[in-house]
Amino acid sequence: MSAKSKLSVVILILSVAALFASLAFAKQDPEIKQCSHQCRVQQQFDEQQKEECERRCEEYHREKKEREREKEHGFHPDRKLRECQSRCMGQAQGEARQLCRFRCQQRLEREEGKRQTKEHEEEDEQEHNPYVFEDRHFYTATKAEKGRVDLLAKFTQNSDVLRGIENYRLALLVANPKAFIVPNHFDADAIFVVTQGRGKISMIQEDKRQSFNIETGDIIRVRAGTPLYLINRDDNEKLFIVKLLQPVNRPDHYEVFYGAGGGNPESFYETFSIEILEAALKTSRDKLERFFDKQGEGAFLEASKEQIEAMSSHEEGSEGGGIWPFKSDSKNPFNLFKKRRPSKSNKYGQLFEVDTDEFQHLKDFDVGVSYANITRGCMTAPFFNSRAIKIAIVVQGEGYLEMVTPDSGRRKSGSSYQKISSRLRPDTVFVVPAGHPFVTVASTRTNLEILCFEVNIENNVRYLLAGEGNFVQQFEKEAKELAFKTREAEVERIFGNQDEEFFFPGPRQQRSRDYE
Amino acid sequence: MSAKSKLSVVILILSVAALFASLAFAKQDPEIKQCSHQCRVQQQFDEQQKEECERRCEEYHREKKEREREKEHGFHPDRKLRECQSRCMGQAQGEARQLCRFRCQQRLEREEGKRQTKEHEEEDEQEHNPYVFEDRHFYTATKAEKGRVDLLAKFTQNSDVLRGIENYRLALLVANPKAFIVPNHFDADAIFVVTQGRGKISMIQEDKRQSFNIETGDIIRVRAGTPLYLINRDDNEKLFIVKLLQPVNRPDHYEVFYGAGGGNPESFYETFSIEILEAALKTSRDKLERFFDKQGEGAFLEASKEQIEAMSSHEEGSEGGGIWPFKSDSKNPFNLFKKRRPSKSNKYGQLFEVDTDEFQHLKDFDVGVSYANITRGCMTAPFFNSRAIKIAIVVQGEGYLEMVTPDSGRRKSGSSYQKISSRLRPDTVFVVPAGHPFVTVASTRTNLEILCFEVNIENNVRYLLAGEGNFVQQFEKEAKELAFKTREAEVERIFGNQDEEFFFPGPRQQRSRDYE
Amino acid sequence: MSAKSKLSVVILILSVAALFASLAFAKQDPEIKQCSHQCRVQQQFDEQQKEECERRCEEYHREKKEREREKEHGFHPDRKLRECQSRCMGQAQGEARQLCRFRCQQRLEREEGKRQTKEHEEEDEQEHNPYVFEDRHFYTATKAEKGRVDLLAKFTQNSDVLRGIENYRLALLVANPKAFIVPNHFDADAIFVVTQGRGKISMIQEDKRQSFNIETGDIIRVRAGTPLYLINRDDNEKLFIVKLLQPVNRPDHYEVFYGAGGGNPESFYETFSIEILEAALKTSRDKLERFFDKQGEGAFLEASKEQIEAMSSHEEGSEGGGIWPFKSDSKNPFNLFKKRRPSKSNKYGQLFEVDTDEFQHLKDFDVGVSYANITRGCMTAPFFNSRAIKIAIVVQGEGYLEMVTPDSGRRKSGSSYQKISSRLRPDTVFVVPAGHPFVTVASTRTNLEILCFEVNIENNVRYLLAGEGNFVQQFEKEAKELAFKTREAEVERIFGNQDEEFFFPGPRQQRSRDYE
Repeated sequence: MSAKSKLSVVILILSVAALFASLAFAKQDPEIKQCSHQCRVQQQFDEQQKEECERRCEEYHREKKEREREKEHGFHPDRKLRECQSRCMGQAQGEARQLCRFRCQQRLEREEGKRQTKEHEEEDEQEHNPYVFEDRHFYTATKAEKGRVDLLAKFTQNSDVLRGIENYRLALLVANPKAFIVPNHFDADAIFVVTQGRGKISMIQEDKRQSFNIETGDIIRVRAGTPLYLINRDDNEKLFIVKLLQPVNRPDHYEVFYGAGGGNPESFYETFSIEILEAALKTSRDKLERFFDKQGEGAFLEASKEQIEAMSSHEEGSEGGGIWPFKSDSKNPFNLFKKRRPSKSNKYGQLFEVDTDEFQHLKDFDVGVSYANITRGCMTAPFFNSRAIKIAIVVQGEGYLEMVTPDSGRRKSGSSYQKISSRLRPDTVFVVPAGHPFVTVASTRTNLEILCFEVNIENNVRYLLAGEGNFVQQFEKEAKELAFKTREAEVERIFGNQDEEFFFPGPRQQRSRDYE
Repeated sequence: MSAKSKLSVVILILSVAALFASLAFAKQDPEIKQCSHQCRVQQQFDEQQKEECERRCEEYHREKKEREREKEHGFHPDRKLRECQSRCMGQAQGEARQLCRFRCQQRLEREEGKRQTKEHEEEDEQEHNPYVFEDRHFYTATKAEKGRVDLLAKFTQNSDVLRGIENYRLALLVANPKAFIVPNHFDADAIFVVTQGRGKISMIQEDKRQSFNIETGDIIRVRAGTPLYLINRDDNEKLFIVKLLQPVNRPDHYEVFYGAGGGNPESFYETFSIEILEAALKTSRDKLERFFDKQGEGAFLEASKEQIEAMSSHEEGSEGGGIWPFKSDSKNPFNLFKKRRPSKSNKYGQLFEVDTDEFQHLKDFDVGVSYANITRGCMTAPFFNSRAIKIAIVVQGEGYLEMVTPDSGRRKSGSSYQKISSRLRPDTVFVVPAGHPFVTVASTRTNLEILCFEVNIENNVRYLLAGEGNFVQQFEKEAKELAFKTREAEVERIFGNQDEEFFFPGPRQQRSRDYE
Repeated sequence: MSAKSKLSVVILILSVAALFASLAFAKQDPEIKQCSHQCRVQQQFDEQQKEECERRCEEYHREKKEREREKEHGFHPDRKLRECQSRCMGQAQGEARQLCRFRCQQRLEREEGKRQTKEHEEEDEQEHNPYVFEDRHFYTATKAEKGRVDLLAKFTQNSDVLRGIENYRLALLVANPKAFIVPNHFDADAIFVVTQGRGKISMIQEDKRQSFNIETGDIIRVRAGTPLYLINRDDNEKLFIVKLLQPVNRPDHYEVFYGAGGGNPESFYETFSIEILEAALKTSRDKLERFFDKQGEGAFLEASKEQIEAMSSHEEGSEGGGIWPFKSDSKNPFNLFKKRRPSKSNKYGQLFEVDTDEFQHLKDFDVGVSYANITRGCMTAPFFNSRAIKIAIVVQGEGYLEMVTPDSGRRKSGSSYQKISSRLRPDTVFVVPAGHPFVTVASTRTNLEILCFEVNIENNVRYLLAGEGNFVQQFEKEAKELAFKTREAEVERIFGNQDEEFFFPGPRQQRSRDYE
């Protein structure tokens, strides 16, 4: 039994509990017992799952009670929680909503001081951390049996500190094996990065079609309004694409138009008056109705093996133009990993970067793309970008982030900066504004792989704060002495001990005798 | 007695009426009689002015009553109407105000369900249609006996869906025969398009004057701050100019400075202290006062036949520089119609477009200009622009528009798009955002002529949804089959029936036997 | 008697009434007598100081009374004043705060009509003048014994008329003799202009250091995020730098990061977890703590004579690269005054301008820099910029400004423009939007020196309204006649009397017999 179906059972039990609750209203709460009992008798649950199930019964019960109290007294300390959870209703569906609600609950518990031990100090800070986005900040833009698109909330939803990137949106596409994503266009410029899988993309250009096989590491520039369709060519593996979007009509909002295709999703053809459609397509009403009225399964369809093979083979041909390597539109897609060496590499990690001169499309967009693979237990050098704003998403692995931000609140008490910390897990998105020093650390169990978009890449300089090439080494002797109020030799020793470049052994990976 | 001082008298009378009213409160309204009496006894009023004065008494009285009723009952169904009509007061003058007030009335009637038959389904939708602007959305920026300038409300006034063009404003200039528009400059970049008439424009460049005869179809780029003056050279025909403006000081607001010229409009020279003016012009106070204190008739004056002839002839000479075809500022103005063939043409319509490479000025502005003449009873192909936002104004004729927009409201019930419809009449302005499919149809009585500005024209692609060159024909066989859930042959038939390009016979123009 | 003078009488009567009321209200307090007595007996005060002291007693007393009344009644008409003064608390320190509070007081007095004589008509208008910024609009960003940085409030703080420059900030740096400003970077692009003194700036570029001696008139372009440090090389003279900043992360906000340097200001290094720092610098915790835990004296330190000499000599060497004249980064800094002639010069003033083609860095920024030195008693020609928005700061001397702005408020009563006037004193900042005619006049006692940044300089044209080269002279004969409703000869005489270019004798400097 999959985790998903188990979750469904939990939800079912909760529903039963709710029903029972409404019957047993105002009595001495037998409902929680009933709910727990239902958990216990699930044959397919192992012991841990039964416990989890019971815990949820209790949670549900507490929630219900609070809601009743709230109704009675008009106010309740948990109003914040309720608001939090009601936002879950609006934004997410299914699993995501459950997770969202659960997170609200966790937050409440922490706030009420019920949880005696905090797992991570970071967890708490994260609550009001406008630079980090997690599952609960994504909502479902499109969902079908064969795949889904999740859209990250606006970067400025909770805070205006990221106003500099308010015109960008981030979305994740997951397509099941053999899925066909029906033709569509959207009013945003986009960069697609394939983070896993093997697919094919076809884009209709002015008067020809460009089709490319795509695979892990491919970067594709999609101009606003370009009609395109996609397939996952693989029989077994899912296809994952991260999209950075820049809307053209409204600063922070874009729309997808499913045009060619009938039924579900509705084609925009059907939105026109039938007499307009008759005249435009020179086809009678009844034929059009039959043509467009085919109930579909949504934006993600399953293609047959033959269809996939046929479409894959097209990319070798020249029909429709635009086959890799094609002349008309230089180097689209462009692979991060192939035929190129990492720009930084040692046993502690590797950094792959797209040179915008190589891939002109990124230059037009003024965005850089890079991919860091940090060896488990290791870390990046602390550094800052002089003018680029980094939008990063964790692709694989776990770890954590530390970032320095100015702290206007504490400034009066003398301290100018605060540390922003956050756990990093797959799909965690974090933003590092220009000038802000930061560091990422891989957990001791897994490598940490991070895909980064760097907005405003033109003339950006990366300033390293430690290790080989750190910027302090460029100071004059007297500046070193004045800045650090010590002898030059001491400054040189401190900033010279670390002789690795960009990737270092992480905390607790160097034994103390390694330290000077 | 000047118009201004007459107005003062009216205001005085109204004030007296108000005073009287407050004393006579709750009585059988002698105040309106008193007010009317005061109007009648004004010796300096002619008959028409007396009537106008009385009309205002009545208006004032009605408003007062309503305000009282509102106070009494806390609510009044007509408050909306009153608010609507009071906006007319502020914004428009003369006919425009009447029309504005009438429209308010119509709206009220519809809302109260008094009007049993709705003329057009569209009328209703239009009320909340943020993409279409009509007479009531224009207000009078400048008005004189010899001409006027009407300025369209901000595109974002009623809705934020057009935020992408919030930095553009649209204005219409109408100059009577022989009108001279006094020198002025404005803090906005502009594109002028002459939609009718014969005039002449003179722009003061850094150290020379550029003068051109202008006529229907001419496009002139006017840089922000350039002092200019205009004449309508024709003895009989009005001169119509459509202006697209992009303010430079504030995103959505611009100001006109009437500088050289005395009296009305006030010259900005007169705003300086008299001692500054004395020192700047090295001229004594009394001479300056005599020079600037010449009561004018407003920004639009009547030039004599001789003056027009003299000024027209200048453009043939070389005095002051800048004669067509002049070298210094390539191809300003540029004519849409002359020496060029329409980019699309058949018996159903013609499309004229400016190639931005030809007219460099538009490239700087990133705006395209086109002009469609749709034969009566015919229509354009449904299409969308990949990244350009179209700002269109109907120049001649009637017809209607259908546009597909995403419908966030209905989305939950499964339908993703809604149809935006609107009647098109002369001066109707409509905006089509990038990616939004739309179609325009000429009425069966008249051709429909539309002037379009296309903002963000760089790299824009027009995707045709039907007829010759439609984008579905670019799909691969398998994509056609998957997208439309039918055989390829069927898709090709449906999208191949219409073999005209861009302009088609409209609905009800093709007999049903014409349809496949 | 004109309407205007009648209005004045009414205001006078109201003022008298207000005065009478304030005298008749409440009784004499012993506390204020005591305070005044204390002022009188101060031996060290001269007569003027004693008066000032007494005035403050009264102020204090009035404030106390008001605060009491406010507490009692929950509301007070002077709440506005209190709010005004409390803003002083937040924003300024020492003298500046006193001045700020005094200004609030003045405003109150004017509002209450108690002050019978107005020193300057301008003072009053200035209160609601969104184009002029004075001491009270600056707040202290950094303050140390050896120097300070004052940051001007957002240009849009009080009004949205300057939205066009909302993304720019202005700051003033003053460094004491021999001050060293510790290494820092900020998330904004910047232009530094040295308005007085002799210093040295070192900027860390990607892989080298650029160091330059700087002096009065030098313009330095500092790219966002570039680590830099500064010294005042002079033993006696302060170093003054005006900075125009354009934030990169958030439109109107930037932050300074003091990175290299321990103690106070806190180094951002210390913000990271100690275990991160250990791993990054490969140095043990106790050594790091000792290294960074050196209490400093703030961001401005005093360098020794030897250190200054050593650092100054570096600029002759080539160590670290980037010595003037260096190749790598053309002409940074660039001097306004050296090796160049003023673009306008006569005995009434001089104008120095940077040609953006000469100094490529300004072109990237789309900003021009100019410096006007107006001879005492003289003035600039009235002029407007076609598209540039001028941000000006008075460097030396006194005088005043007159600017024409559209007056939406008065427009209904027929007058379209209003005069904005303001006294100019050192550090007064004023903004002139594109298209707005204005003039600056030096006082009869001192020259007036103004540093100007001109945003949107590309394609800007300066239109002179009087003197040699004024734009009216470019009009055709008929346009002159129509615009001014007089004979051409008369127009030519009025606009030809003043034959100086750009700088003229000011008001009251030309005897009336000089005027035509």
